[in-house]
Amino acid sequence: MSTPVTPVAPPLKDELDIVIPTIRNLDFLEMWRPFFQPYHLIIVQDGDPTKIIKVPEGFDYELYNRNDINRILGPKASCISFKDSACRCFGFIVSKKKYIYTIDDDCFVAKDPTGKDINALQQHIHNLLTPSTPFFFNTLYDPYREGADFVRGYPFSMREGVPTAISHGLWLNIPDYDAPTQLVKPRERNTRYVDAVMTIPKGTIFPMCGMNLGFDRELIGPAMYFGLMGDGQPIGRYDDMWAGWCAKVICDHLSLGVKTGLPYIWHSKASNPFVNLKKEYKGIYWQEEIIPFFQSVTFSKESTTVQKCYIELSKMVKEKLSPVDPYFQKLADAMLTWIEAWEELNSPAKSAPAANADTKK
Amino acid sequence: MSTPVTPVAPPLKDELDIVIPTIRNLDFLEMWRPFFQPYHLIIVQDGDPTKIIKVPEGFDYELYNRNDINRILGPKASCISFKDSACRCFGFIVSKKKYIYTIDDDCFVAKDPTGKDINALQQHIHNLLTPSTPFFFNTLYDPYREGADFVRGYPFSMREGVPTAISHGLWLNIPDYDAPTQLVKPRERNTRYVDAVMTIPKGTIFPMCGMNLGFDRELIGPAMYFGLMGDGQPIGRYDDMWAGWCAKVICDHLSLGVKTGLPYIWHSKASNPFVNLKKEYKGIYWQEEIIPFFQSVTFSKESTTVQKCYIELSKMVKEKLSPVDPYFQKLADAMLTWIEAWEELNSPAKSAPAANADTKK
Repeated sequence: MSTPVTPVAPPLKDELDIVIPTIRNLDFLEMWRPFFQPYHLIIVQDGDPTKIIKVPEGFDYELYNRNDINRILGPKASCISFKDSACRCFGFIVSKKKYIYTIDDDCFVAKDPTGKDINALQQHIHNLLTPSTPFFFNTLYDPYREGADFVRGYPFSMREGVPTAISHGLWLNIPDYDAPTQLVKPRERNTRYVDAVMTIPKGTIFPMCGMNLGFDRELIGPAMYFGLMGDGQPIGRYDDMWAGWCAKVICDHLSLGVKTGLPYIWHSKASNPFVNLKKEYKGIYWQEEIIPFFQSVTFSKESTTVQKCYIELSKMVKEKLSPVDPYFQKLADAMLTWIEAWEELNSPAKSAPAANADTKK
Repeated sequence: MSTPVTPVAPPLKDELDIVIPTIRNLDFLEMWRPFFQPYHLIIVQDGDPTKIIKVPEGFDYELYNRNDINRILGPKASCISFKDSACRCFGFIVSKKKYIYTIDDDCFVAKDPTGKDINALQQHIHNLLTPSTPFFFNTLYDPYREGADFVRGYPFSMREGVPTAISHGLWLNIPDYDAPTQLVKPRERNTRYVDAVMTIPKGTIFPMCGMNLGFDRELIGPAMYFGLMGDGQPIGRYDDMWAGWCAKVICDHLSLGVKTGLPYIWHSKASNPFVNLKKEYKGIYWQEEIIPFFQSVTFSKESTTVQKCYIELSKMVKEKLSPVDPYFQKLADAMLTWIEAWEELNSPAKSAPAANADTKK
C-alpha cells in the first residue's frame, strides 16, 4: 500500500509577489532560491537607472528603474522616493496579486534553534492566512498556532478573530536599531529566537520594519505607502515607520489584524550609523510629535475603505503635522497622489489617462 | 590573585512574601525549597479550618485559616472568599512587604530549553525591578533584557518606561484553559517555551492567571482583590481574572506597567473540567459584558491612588454590571469592604478598631 508522492505546490504561488528594493548583493537571490524561485519577483531599483541589476537564471521577475516609474506614473511619480528603499512601494502598486512579501537584500535565510533553515515566506503566509485577535490579549500568544489556544478568561465572542492584514517578521543577528543605539551598542547582536507570533492589540501603534514584511494587498495595500525619503527629502529611514503608523491606525479602524514575531531572517549587515544619523536626526525629534498624533487619530464613519481612510488621514497630517515642519504638507500631498496612482493602476477602469485622475492637486 | 567568595543574598529577601492558597501536596514545598526557603511564606488555608497543613521543616511561614481571617477582619471577613483559592488575597492584606509572589500548589519547577531548573521567583523579581513600556510597542519584546533594546522608531521620550506593578508568569505542561477548551482538547499540553517578557500595552486588558504571579504590593496591592468566589457564590475560577481586569485599568490610569511572559512554572495537574464548567458557566456569558465594561472604564482625575481608583471602580461596577446579575451589586459592596480592610491593616494608624473603619455599609 504505497502512496504515490505528489509534488506539493508552493503556497499561494499565483497569489503572492515578492517585492525587493534593489539587489546589490549577488548572493542574496541564490541563498533564497529554494524558497523564492516558485514566486514572481518585482524588483524596484532605488538609484541610478543606468546601473544594471543582474538577476540570476531561473527567476521569474520584472524590474523597474526610475525611468520606468516616471513613464508609468507620469507626474504622479513624484510620490515615489528616489535613491531610497522607500521606492519599494512602487512594487506594491504595480503588483496584481493579493499578497506581498517584501524583503531587503541584506537579509538572508536564518536558522531556527534546531539548525534548520527558516522558510520565512511560508511563516508569513501562515500568519496572513490565520486570523488576528486585536480586541483582547492572549497570554499564550497566537491562539491559532498548533499546540496553543485561547486561555481561560478569553471572551468566546472574540475567538473568531479578524482577518490578518500585516505579518511583521523579525531579524536575528543585526537588530533594527536607530543610529544613536547603533553608535552606543555597535556590537549588539540579536541572538534570541523568540518562538512566538502575536497580534498587536487594537489602539497600539508599533515600529514597523520593512526588512521582512508580508501583507494582504487587497486588505491594506493602499495604506502601505513608504512616504517621501531619500533624494531631495529632509529625512530617511522612516519610510517603513510611516507606512506602519498609517497602516496600523487604519487596520484598527477597519477591524483588521497586525501580527508580529516569527519568522526571523538573518540580517547580515549593519548600515553605517553615521550615515543613518544624518538621515534620521529630524525623524528622531519629529517622532516625539508624530507618535502622539497617530495615537489620537480617529476616523469618521464615512471612511469605510482603506483609500477613504488614507485620504482622511492625509488631511489630518496636513492639519496637525504641518506646524511641526513644512515637510508634512508635502508628505500629505504625496499621500493623496499615492492614492490617485493606486486607483489609476488598480481600479477596474485601469485605462483612464493619468492626467484625468490627477484632479486633487 | 584569588577573589574571596562571598555568599550572594537572595534578592529582595526581606522585601518579598510568598503567598500560597493552601498546600494539598507535600512535594510542593520540597521541590521549591532551594528557591523559596530564604523567603517568608504566607499560607492561606482555603477550606475547612480544622484540617492541618503540614509545612516541612526549615520554612519561615505564617498560616491563616478561616477562623484567623474572621478574627482579624471581623465583619469585614465577608469580603474574603471561603473554600476557594481566591482567599489568597487575604495574604496580600496581612503582608507587610513591598513585593508579593503568589503560586498555586500544583505548580512545580519547570526546566528551560537547556534543561536547567527555572528560578521563577528570580525572573519575577527581575521583571518587577525593571521598567515597563506601556505607551508604545517594542517589537524585540522587553527592551531592558540583556541583548535587547528599543528598536528603530521607538520614541526616545518613552524609553525611561514606567514602574512595573505586575509580573505575570506562564505555565508549561497544562495550559490555563477554560472548561470548554479543556473538554475539547483534553490532551493539549503547552510545550512551547517562548523566551520573552513583554509589556501589555496601555488600553489593553488581559486574562491574568493567579497561578504564577508577582506584583509590587505598594504600587498595586489594593487592586489585587480576588473577588467573591467559592462557597455561597454563583461563580468560581474568575477570581484572578477579576483582579487582573481591575488592576490593569488602574495601572493604565496611574501609568504603571504590567508584564507577561517569563518565567514559566510546570503546571502539573489539570483541574476537573466538569467541576470547572459548573464554576465557570456564569462567568462565560457574564464576561461577554464584563470585558466591554472594563474596556470602557475611565477614571476621574481625582482618583490619584489605587484605593481611590478602586472605590470609583466599585461604583462603576455597581452601576453598569448590576443589571447583568445581582451578584455584581454584592461584589461591588465587597470591593469597598476590601478597601476598608486594606486601609485598616495597612494605614499608618493600624490600631483603629475595625468597627469604626467600616462606615460605608
